[in-house]
Amino acid sequence: MSDEISRGFVDPEKQSLLNHHTEKHFTAGEIVRDIIIGVSDGLTVPFALAAGLSGANASSSIVITAGVAEVAAGAISMGLGGYLSAKSEADHYERELKREQEEIISVPDTEAAEVAEILAEYGVEPHEYAPVVNALRKRPEAWLDFMMKFELGLEKPDPKRALQSAFNIAFSYILGGLVPLLPYMFIPRAQDAVVASAAITIVALLIFGYAKGYFTGNKPVKSAFETALIGAVASAAAFGIAKVIHP
Amino acid sequence: MSDEISRGFVDPEKQSLLNHHTEKHFTAGEIVRDIIIGVSDGLTVPFALAAGLSGANASSSIVITAGVAEVAAGAISMGLGGYLSAKSEADHYERELKREQEEIISVPDTEAAEVAEILAEYGVEPHEYAPVVNALRKRPEAWLDFMMKFELGLEKPDPKRALQSAFNIAFSYILGGLVPLLPYMFIPRAQDAVVASAAITIVALLIFGYAKGYFTGNKPVKSAFETALIGAVASAAAFGIAKVIHP
Repeated sequence: MSDEISRGFVDPEKQSLLNHHTEKHFTAGEIVRDIIIGVSDGLTVPFALAAGLSGANASSSIVITAGVAEVAAGAISMGLGGYLSAKSEADHYERELKREQEEIISVPDTEAAEVAEILAEYGVEPHEYAPVVNALRKRPEAWLDFMMKFELGLEKPDPKRALQSAFNIAFSYILGGLVPLLPYMFIPRAQDAVVASAAITIVALLIFGYAKGYFTGNKPVKSAFETALIGAVASAAAFGIAKVIHP
Repeated sequence: MSDEISRGFVDPEKQSLLNHHTEKHFTAGEIVRDIIIGVSDGLTVPFALAAGLSGANASSSIVITAGVAEVAAGAISMGLGGYLSAKSEADHYERELKREQEEIISVPDTEAAEVAEILAEYGVEPHEYAPVVNALRKRPEAWLDFMMKFELGLEKPDPKRALQSAFNIAFSYILGGLVPLLPYMFIPRAQDAVVASAAITIVALLIFGYAKGYFTGNKPVKSAFETALIGAVASAAAFGIAKVIHP
């Protein structure tokens, strides 16, 4: 490639190869991850908020108003926030990709030295990694993929994933949040509704925690208890604080 | 190593080398990330909740009760949830590490084939990657590091980081949440307090969004406006929903 540099242009075929990259696909694992993110906070915070307000002697009407407003706000904050965050990551990836692409074209010896450095970290000697470095130099597309993954640790994000992720997280938060609020929609006295809310929410947290453990490869029973514990601690804190502020 | 396997034991020096791994250190980048996570939701949700309740004609007293209860619950959910999540990741890493360790000792040819597969993805031919594979086979510790990173994409988490991360996120959420609630503590009529709350929160969101963009390498002005936009949309939704439920 050094003669191409001195002539000042890159073989268009090589350039178009550089522009082709395999995309990371949206997997079931990512949908599960989004649901976990949404339901974890969705089941916990609205429940705790509602319990706290009940302890402060609010009516079910106020509790529902606060709860639903919080669920809406939380779903938007997590969903829209997650979407913009994913878009930023995608923009970041594109910027890093262009930069590596330029470096491969303009300073291939530096890039080759970086490959050598990566392999040398694993005790591989120059005479051992030289054939790999040369192999990569002959395939600019693969070389670019290698640098993105092994030097920068970045994978090409799927542009549709950002939007899909946002919806998954937001909907999960909403579904999670509605569970503890349901009793307040049927029981006008908040101090009565809170008991039903606590009962169904603890059960929901245990089930969700178990499923979370199962899907993430962690002990499901332990996960169930930890998840329920977070709900218990959060609601106890909310209850205590609300009682102090509004006895 | 094949003779060691047939003799049924591993050289203790090799085994102890297998037990040594460089830890991923807690960096300023991670503290920034935790602060961003906490403040993003902390500035947005309590503000929106308070604005929604103000629109539903609640008193500042109820707004503060709900707001502070939500901040407590949110901080615990995010903090404790983040901590347990990081602990699960650490446990997952340890399990995967042990499994790779066993595979390297018991089925080194399979593991060597996996290294070959990884390099072959980049168009590297067998005669080109063979010296690298052999180099790794001679260094079990480096080989293990290589498999953890390049096959599984995992890095050894710092055990202290889980706790530190949890505190950072929780504190950030609390600090973020108190900003929009402050006016309600001084202005008894919520419908008046909400104006002050909106003003200081929008400014806080713009500043935070700008800083976020700066630290994450994205356009700061764009980031400032996006962050403020999320706050505006979340509070509009909360306000609208609260007015519908509790006119």
